[in-house]
Amino acid sequence: MKKLNSSKRYIEFIAVGSELLTPNFLETNSLYLAEKLEELGWQLNFKTVVSDRLAEIKKVFQTALKRSWLILMSGGLGPTEDDRTKQAVAEVLGRRLIFNRKILENIRKRFESRGLEMPPSNRQQAYIIERAEILENPNGTAPGMWLEIRGQIIVLLPGPPSELKPMLEDLINSKLKAFQRKPLIRAILRVTGAGESWIEDQIKPVYAKLPPEIELTTLASPGDVQIRLSLLIGKQEKEERLKLEEIRNELLNILGDKVYSTEGESLEEVIGEKLTFSQKTLACAESCTGGLLAHRITNVPGSSNYFSEGLVTYSNEAKIRELGVPEELIREKGAVSAEVAEAMVIGIRKKTGADFALSTTGIAGPGGGTINKPVGLVYIGLAFAGGKVVEKSLFRGQREQIKFQATQKALDMLRLKLIEIEKGKIEKGK
Amino acid sequence: MKKLNSSKRYIEFIAVGSELLTPNFLETNSLYLAEKLEELGWQLNFKTVVSDRLAEIKKVFQTALKRSWLILMSGGLGPTEDDRTKQAVAEVLGRRLIFNRKILENIRKRFESRGLEMPPSNRQQAYIIERAEILENPNGTAPGMWLEIRGQIIVLLPGPPSELKPMLEDLINSKLKAFQRKPLIRAILRVTGAGESWIEDQIKPVYAKLPPEIELTTLASPGDVQIRLSLLIGKQEKEERLKLEEIRNELLNILGDKVYSTEGESLEEVIGEKLTFSQKTLACAESCTGGLLAHRITNVPGSSNYFSEGLVTYSNEAKIRELGVPEELIREKGAVSAEVAEAMVIGIRKKTGADFALSTTGIAGPGGGTINKPVGLVYIGLAFAGGKVVEKSLFRGQREQIKFQATQKALDMLRLKLIEIEKGKIEKGK
Repeated sequence: MKKLNSSKRYIEFIAVGSELLTPNFLETNSLYLAEKLEELGWQLNFKTVVSDRLAEIKKVFQTALKRSWLILMSGGLGPTEDDRTKQAVAEVLGRRLIFNRKILENIRKRFESRGLEMPPSNRQQAYIIERAEILENPNGTAPGMWLEIRGQIIVLLPGPPSELKPMLEDLINSKLKAFQRKPLIRAILRVTGAGESWIEDQIKPVYAKLPPEIELTTLASPGDVQIRLSLLIGKQEKEERLKLEEIRNELLNILGDKVYSTEGESLEEVIGEKLTFSQKTLACAESCTGGLLAHRITNVPGSSNYFSEGLVTYSNEAKIRELGVPEELIREKGAVSAEVAEAMVIGIRKKTGADFALSTTGIAGPGGGTINKPVGLVYIGLAFAGGKVVEKSLFRGQREQIKFQATQKALDMLRLKLIEIEKGKIEKGK
Repeated sequence: MKKLNSSKRYIEFIAVGSELLTPNFLETNSLYLAEKLEELGWQLNFKTVVSDRLAEIKKVFQTALKRSWLILMSGGLGPTEDDRTKQAVAEVLGRRLIFNRKILENIRKRFESRGLEMPPSNRQQAYIIERAEILENPNGTAPGMWLEIRGQIIVLLPGPPSELKPMLEDLINSKLKAFQRKPLIRAILRVTGAGESWIEDQIKPVYAKLPPEIELTTLASPGDVQIRLSLLIGKQEKEERLKLEEIRNELLNILGDKVYSTEGESLEEVIGEKLTFSQKTLACAESCTGGLLAHRITNVPGSSNYFSEGLVTYSNEAKIRELGVPEELIREKGAVSAEVAEAMVIGIRKKTGADFALSTTGIAGPGGGTINKPVGLVYIGLAFAGGKVVEKSLFRGQREQIKFQATQKALDMLRLKLIEIEKGKIEKGK
């Protein structure tokens, strides 16, 4: 373990880029960074977004230099006039920028390999802060930089995620690892099918007896709640790990099947694993979710092994033609009805021969709602060998949130059915 | 216009919440904030995310107090032990927290109206920073606070977006408006079908003669580039506006049809407008994009007027059964081939009778690639009255990025065809 400047306590991240201060751009590098830092048991204390302006970058860097032992910065290393990160850092540290011929050659070769001539502006990228170590960038023209100054570490990373990620990955496994202290361990339970306040009520007894070294937080978004336990390991590692395990199991006992994942997997990944394991197939017929259900299912690599087909039968005509939903049924009950959801799910299962089928029909809004059938009303059908169910839900939120919650509910109905079947098999086996 | 502390130049936002420093949670309040500030012609200079810890919140607030005339903070006003924003601000300012009976009554009533008793912990929310003005919160229990100190403004807002947004909306139209200076105006061009470096090359002449008061930035993500112009209006408003308009038009001239939107609309919204206007319909058959194309199309409210149906024919069997793709064709050419993309798009157009049809087939990865057909290879088909085209692309990135870029390309092929038809009609009309 290398020595740190212990008077500077914090770890911080600075994202440079005026666009990240506008209404349209989210700063996402810090999420990846936080994930990688966790591997070393580290947590971010601050993250700051600053514009491309030199004076402002300098201000933010000066503040960081006063309080943090590890300062990671991203962005502002490109070839344009707006790229001023290294100038700001050099000026605050009182160092020069030095031209590096080898870097220029690398950049030139990069262009040549694509049959292009290097634009003159890229020459700027060959300047490096005095005494900085160069971090090579195989995925772009901007090299990163590493500075160690009296036990403080400053790392300059390129802004594009495709360049930042491999560079950071490499640092975590080498130069940064040398500073690793005791790790932080985490447990995550992902829950659906219950609201945050209900969950909070249920887990109150666990809160009450939580030891001070363990942190418990619940974080909710529509259709999904995460419960996170974290523990910074102290002197009694074994006991502390056991305690975390015990609390995790107690939460699992209380929440039961409402917990869909304990390793951080998404709901579609959980279902993918179950279908793969049981060698079963899935098809779906969507109306109000408009393709999102198929999109989520097919986001899982290897989903082609169990997902054969999805239909987005948006119009009534498509429901009739593709799924054999009787025209009279739509006329009598309406396209948004339990009966149509049922006819859809039976239709798609029959047509595809899949083991399981899902259907959705509802009103995603913002228009199209009535008093009897308001925006957010969704019927979801599930069909399987020997049965079918339809559930009615009323979701809140914007169009995309309603679409998401409906797919979350559909996937969860399937998950619960798969668990029921697994349990039945175990019972039978006994 | 009210008087400001002109020695403090900046506007900054501080989001309080340990969860916002973990790998899983994005801070999104600042996007809404940036959007609202733009209405007053203001831009954020800094945004900082800080944990729930008192010492760290104090540090960040102290820094802000030294440099910014307007400090907006969100989060940490709730009833739990983790909510320490007002304590931190009060301590830094050397003010007390004062109990406010009226706020307590409001909170109690809020619980009673839902038939609940107020939990004791909510009592904490009735404490207000000495001499702060209370900002009422009709959507939650935490009131906001407004402090004016020697020309500096500090605003404390609740963290949940559903509470923050209406409170901020109100401030923008009242208390903050009183400080408004000249507005900022913006123009955005969204471009697809060209890389960032190509675009940079094309628009170099515009850069060269850009007046200093106008800022031009380009921002690229896979499949999408935004060009943003911004101008902080000075003394010659009319001339400056004209100049911005002129530059915008010059960019449009250079980039032509590659610009798909000038008002910030998404590609699917642009297509939605064109299809609605021309009263044409659309259907799609997806393989590698797995439902994302239909999902994007149906994210547009009112899309049911032109989008009838989408098929996610993931398996070969589904391509044969649903779209009439000949089995021999798949055997000979492979499911990922120009021939199959063509058969798919003809099949879906015939089946649905839609005016336009799109198809995708490719390898989204991470597995499934070969030397001849690598990950990222996608064939996209477009069919219309009297014709069809298939284009081959090779996209880079992760599975979801490849899916996205393929849908972007598909939508853009349709957009260009719709423009061609529009132009043809105008020519004929002449």
